[in-house]
Amino acid sequence: MRFVLVVGTTRTAEIDGISAAGAAPELLAHTPAADAELVAYGRTLLAPHVPVSPSGCPTPAVVTRDVRDVVGFDLLVVDAGLATPTGAPTVDLPADPGGDIRAPAPVPAAAATFDAARDLARTLPDERLVIGESIPGGTTTALGVFAALGEPFGVSSSLAENPLERKRAVVGAGLEASGLARGDAAGDPSRAVRRMGDPVLAAVTGLTVGATDTGTGVTLAGGTQLLAAAALARHAGVTAPIGLATTSFVAADETADVRAAADDLALDLTVTDPGFDQADHVAMARYVKGEAKEGVGMGGALALADRADASMAEVRDRIVDVTETLAVSDGP
Amino acid sequence: MRFVLVVGTTRTAEIDGISAAGAAPELLAHTPAADAELVAYGRTLLAPHVPVSPSGCPTPAVVTRDVRDVVGFDLLVVDAGLATPTGAPTVDLPADPGGDIRAPAPVPAAAATFDAARDLARTLPDERLVIGESIPGGTTTALGVFAALGEPFGVSSSLAENPLERKRAVVGAGLEASGLARGDAAGDPSRAVRRMGDPVLAAVTGLTVGATDTGTGVTLAGGTQLLAAAALARHAGVTAPIGLATTSFVAADETADVRAAADDLALDLTVTDPGFDQADHVAMARYVKGEAKEGVGMGGALALADRADASMAEVRDRIVDVTETLAVSDGP
Repeated sequence: MRFVLVVGTTRTAEIDGISAAGAAPELLAHTPAADAELVAYGRTLLAPHVPVSPSGCPTPAVVTRDVRDVVGFDLLVVDAGLATPTGAPTVDLPADPGGDIRAPAPVPAAAATFDAARDLARTLPDERLVIGESIPGGTTTALGVFAALGEPFGVSSSLAENPLERKRAVVGAGLEASGLARGDAAGDPSRAVRRMGDPVLAAVTGLTVGATDTGTGVTLAGGTQLLAAAALARHAGVTAPIGLATTSFVAADETADVRAAADDLALDLTVTDPGFDQADHVAMARYVKGEAKEGVGMGGALALADRADASMAEVRDRIVDVTETLAVSDGP
Repeated sequence: MRFVLVVGTTRTAEIDGISAAGAAPELLAHTPAADAELVAYGRTLLAPHVPVSPSGCPTPAVVTRDVRDVVGFDLLVVDAGLATPTGAPTVDLPADPGGDIRAPAPVPAAAATFDAARDLARTLPDERLVIGESIPGGTTTALGVFAALGEPFGVSSSLAENPLERKRAVVGAGLEASGLARGDAAGDPSRAVRRMGDPVLAAVTGLTVGATDTGTGVTLAGGTQLLAAAALARHAGVTAPIGLATTSFVAADETADVRAAADDLALDLTVTDPGFDQADHVAMARYVKGEAKEGVGMGGALALADRADASMAEVRDRIVDVTETLAVSDGP
C-alpha cells in the first residue's frame, strides 16, 4: 500500500468566500505545499505557516500525519500544479496551477497531466494506492466537473456553512465561458477537467485509471473532490472496483449526499469517525462544528488506522501533542 | 535519522574509460535516476534498466534498498542535476547537469545549488542526516575538487582497475581550462565546485553545512566522493564532527587511502564489511573482485544495518532474492 497525496492549486480558490483552506486569501496558495510538508516531515519547511482556517481550524494534514506516525505508511507526494515551492519530495507531473473556472479553459494541460499520472500509476509496485488531495477551492471545481459530466451530485465544503449558491453561480459562469451545457463533456473526462476542473482532478483520475489498468487497487481518500475523480474515472471507462474512504464529517454533510453518490458510482464506501467529540481540544472541536471535514487524505488515513487496530484515542492524543508542538496558533 | 540520496550527472562521465556506472556509455545518464527509483520503490519505474557495470555488477542501489527493506529508514531523494526523469519523489535543487570538467566552468550554478541545499538541511526536522550520492564520473570530479582545494588525497573507482592516470590527465586539463593552479580554490568551496566539481558535490556540501549549522548530525555515506564533500565542508569552515561511513571495499582500495584522508579531515570513519566473500552469488562476487565498491550510500546503509543488529546474512539473502526478482541480467 502506498499513500499518494496529490497537491496543486486553482485560482478558483481566490474567489471570495469559496474556501476555508487558509487563514487569509493570500495564504491559500501555500496550503497544499505546507500540507505536503506536514505529511512528509511532521512540520512545515519552506511553507511559511501550518495552514489554518480563518477561525483557527488546523489543516487535516495534521490528522493524516498523526495517523502516519501511529500506523506508518509509505508516502508519495505528486505535484500537479503547485504555485509555491514545497520542501516535500515530489514526483512532478506536467501541470500548471489551474485557472479560475470562469475562464474558458482553466486547465489547458489536463490531457497531459492525466496521461503522465496514468503512466506513473502503471509502473508503481504497490498492491493498492490510497489517493488523497490538497487543493484549496477543490470542491468548487468538483462541482464544475459534475456539471460538465452531467452528474447530479452536490459537493461538501471546508466551511461550516457551505456557500453552495456561490459555487453554483461560479459553475454557471464557467459553463457559459466554456460554451458547455450541463453534460456536454459526458464520457470525455479530459474535456471536463480542461474546461471546468483543476489539475489535481486530472492527476487523481489518471492515477486511478493507470492503477486499475494494471490490477492495482484504488482507495480514493477524501470527500466530494474524490467523488468527482471517481466520476471522471467512470466516464473514462473504468469498471474495476474503486473505494472511497471519507470522514464521518463529510458523511454527515446534508449539502452533499455522499452515500447516494458513492452508490450511484459503484464505489465501496468507508466512513470513519475519529471520535473528535470525545476530545476536548480546539484542534478537534472545529471539526465537530463542521469545519474542514476532510482533506489531505484524512478519511483514508483514518480508515488505515481503523484497519490497523490503532486506537482512535491514540490518534487523538497525538493530534493534541502535535498541534501544540506546531504552535498552530502562531499563524497569522 | 533521514537517509538523503543526492542524484545528478556530469558530462565528465562520458570521457572514455572513466566510469563503470552503466553497461554502456549511453546508459550512464540513466544510472542516478534508476538508482533513486530502486531505493525508493525497490525497482525501476521510468528508468529503462537496473544499472549494471559493463561486466554485469549490479548497482549498489540494490544493496542500499535491501538494507532499507531490512531495517527501514526515511528516504529523501534530492535532484541536483539529473539529466533524465526519475519516478522517485525528489526535492529539486537549482542545478543543471554538470559539464565536462575540462571546460572552464562545468558547474555554473554551484553557489545557488550549495545555498539551496544548505537552506533545505537547516529546515529538516531530523537529528541526523545520512547523505549518499549517485553520479557517474563522480570520482573524477572528486579528484578535480581535491586539486582545486590543494588537498593531496587520491580517489577510488567503480572499476576494479582504477584508471588513475586518465583521471589525473582529465583533472590537469580541467585546471588548465579553468585557469587554476593546484590549491587556488582553497577556502572557496563554491569556486572549487564551479570550476572542477559536479552539482552533486555542491548539494552534499550545502546539506552538510546547513545540517551542522543547526546542530544536526551528518554521516557522509560513501567513499572518496563523500571525502571530497567533507573536504569542501571543511574549506567552508565547518568544524563540527562529521562521520564518513564506507564499505570495506573502498577501505581496501590502495589507490585511495581513505583512512589517512578521513584522519586528515577529522572525520569519524566507520568501515562496514558486508561479508560478500561468504556469499556465492554473482551480485556479490563482483564486489569481492573490486568492482563498484561503494555508491548510492551503500556504506552508510550497511553501517545502519550493523547498528540495528540486523544480520549481514539477512542482508545478503535479500540481495540474492532482489537481484533475481529484478532480472538484472536482462540489461543490455
